[in-house]
Amino acid sequence: MEIYPKSSKHYVAVDCIIFGYDILDKELKLLLYKRTFDPARGSLSLAGGFVNAKESLDEAACRILTKLTGLESVYMKQSYAYGDTDRDPGDRVISVSYFALIPVRDINKDLARQNGVSWYALSGLPKLIFDHNDMVRRALSELQTQIRIKPVGFELLPEKFTLVQLQDLYEAIYRRKVDRRNFRKKILSMGILEKLEEKEKETSKKGAYYYKFNQDTYLKLKQNGFYFNLDVN
Amino acid sequence: MEIYPKSSKHYVAVDCIIFGYDILDKELKLLLYKRTFDPARGSLSLAGGFVNAKESLDEAACRILTKLTGLESVYMKQSYAYGDTDRDPGDRVISVSYFALIPVRDINKDLARQNGVSWYALSGLPKLIFDHNDMVRRALSELQTQIRIKPVGFELLPEKFTLVQLQDLYEAIYRRKVDRRNFRKKILSMGILEKLEEKEKETSKKGAYYYKFNQDTYLKLKQNGFYFNLDVN
Repeated sequence: MEIYPKSSKHYVAVDCIIFGYDILDKELKLLLYKRTFDPARGSLSLAGGFVNAKESLDEAACRILTKLTGLESVYMKQSYAYGDTDRDPGDRVISVSYFALIPVRDINKDLARQNGVSWYALSGLPKLIFDHNDMVRRALSELQTQIRIKPVGFELLPEKFTLVQLQDLYEAIYRRKVDRRNFRKKILSMGILEKLEEKEKETSKKGAYYYKFNQDTYLKLKQNGFYFNLDVN
Repeated sequence: MEIYPKSSKHYVAVDCIIFGYDILDKELKLLLYKRTFDPARGSLSLAGGFVNAKESLDEAACRILTKLTGLESVYMKQSYAYGDTDRDPGDRVISVSYFALIPVRDINKDLARQNGVSWYALSGLPKLIFDHNDMVRRALSELQTQIRIKPVGFELLPEKFTLVQLQDLYEAIYRRKVDRRNFRKKILSMGILEKLEEKEKETSKKGAYYYKFNQDTYLKLKQNGFYFNLDVN
C-alpha cells in the first residue's frame, strides 16, 4: 500500500569512515578500498553500500563494517547525512556517514586483504571519490572535538597505555604537538585514569607506568555534573 | 539511465526542530504543528516534509522552515538521520532532522497561524508523532553541548542582552540553575563580550549593562587555539 504516493524516492547509502590507530607508528589511519565497479572504478573510496529495504541505517553501517573487518562490537557513531543532488555521478544518492574507531591491530588482516581494503595514513590522504574527502574532513573535526570533551580517545588504544602513548594519540588526531606538562596535569587531574603497578619498558630503560581508563569512575563523576575537558595547547 | 538498478529506493524526509526563546518568559520553546493528513492526523508533529528529487537535504530543510516562519537566514544545523524501518507507520521513511535557533519575536505570527504552527514550552512537552520526541531529546542534548563549547547561545538572544538575560538562557537550556558568580566570571574571562554604555532599566531601578557578543574577537581568539568553554555548575 502506498500511503505517500506523491513523493520521490531516493537511493540511500551509508559510508564508513574507519579510523585506525597504531601505537607503534603513532599515526591516525583510514581504512579504504579500491572501487571495483562503475562509476569511478579503481578509485579509492570509503567503505560503503546501499541501505536495504529491511535494515536500519545503523544496521547497514554495521553490516558493512563487519563484512570488511570481521569486527562486531566497535565504537561507531553517525556523523552526517550528505544530500547534494549531484554528489554521486551515477545517480542521486543520499549518503549517511558513520565514523568508527578501532585499534589497527584488532582488524582481521586476511579478511581485509580479501576484501581489498587497506590502511592509509591520514596525513597526505589521496583524492577519494565523490565527496568522501569532505566526509573524512568533517569526521576528523568531530573526532577532534569529541576527544576534547569526551573520553572516546581510549577506544583507539589498548586497554593499558602509558601517558606518552595517550599524548601521542592526541597529537596524531590534533595533528600538532601538545604541551607535555599541561597535558599530564589536565588528564590526571580529572581522576578518571587508574595507575597500574606495571611498567612499559620497551621504549625506555627507566620505564613508564601503564594507566587504564576507569569508565565507572567517569560515569559517576559525570552524573555529579563533571565534564571531561582536555583543552590543551 | 539507472546505474544502480539492484538497490532499494526510500522516501527521505527532513524534520525541523525549531527552538525558540523569549527573553521575557525565559522559556525554551518548540514550534510544532498539528498534522492535517494520515497517518496520525491531528497529532502534534515537528515541521517536516519529503525531500524532492531536485533539492538537497539542506534545501529541503530551509524550504520548510521558510514556508512556516517566513524567516530566511536562520541558524540551522543538521542533527541526525533517523532510519529505523518501522519509525513511520505510513511507509518506510528515512528522516534527517535539523535544529534551528530563533528568537521567538523574529517569527511572522500571521504566517505561523495560517500554517497551523505554534510555540510549545519544552518543559511538559506532549507526546509527538513517531520518533519526534527522540529527535527533540537528541537535539536538546546537542544544544546543551553546543552552548557549552561554542558561542551559539547568542543566536537565541537579541543583539544586546544583559548578563542576567544570558544566564537565564543557559538555565532554560540546561533546565537547571547555574551559579551566578561562576557564570559571570567564566563568560567575562573569555573576553568575547563587549560591554555597552547603555543599561537595561525595565527589570531593576539600578539597571544592568547591556553586552554584545563580538564575533570578530571570538574568531581571532579561536585561530590562536582558544576554546569557548562554559563549564558551569
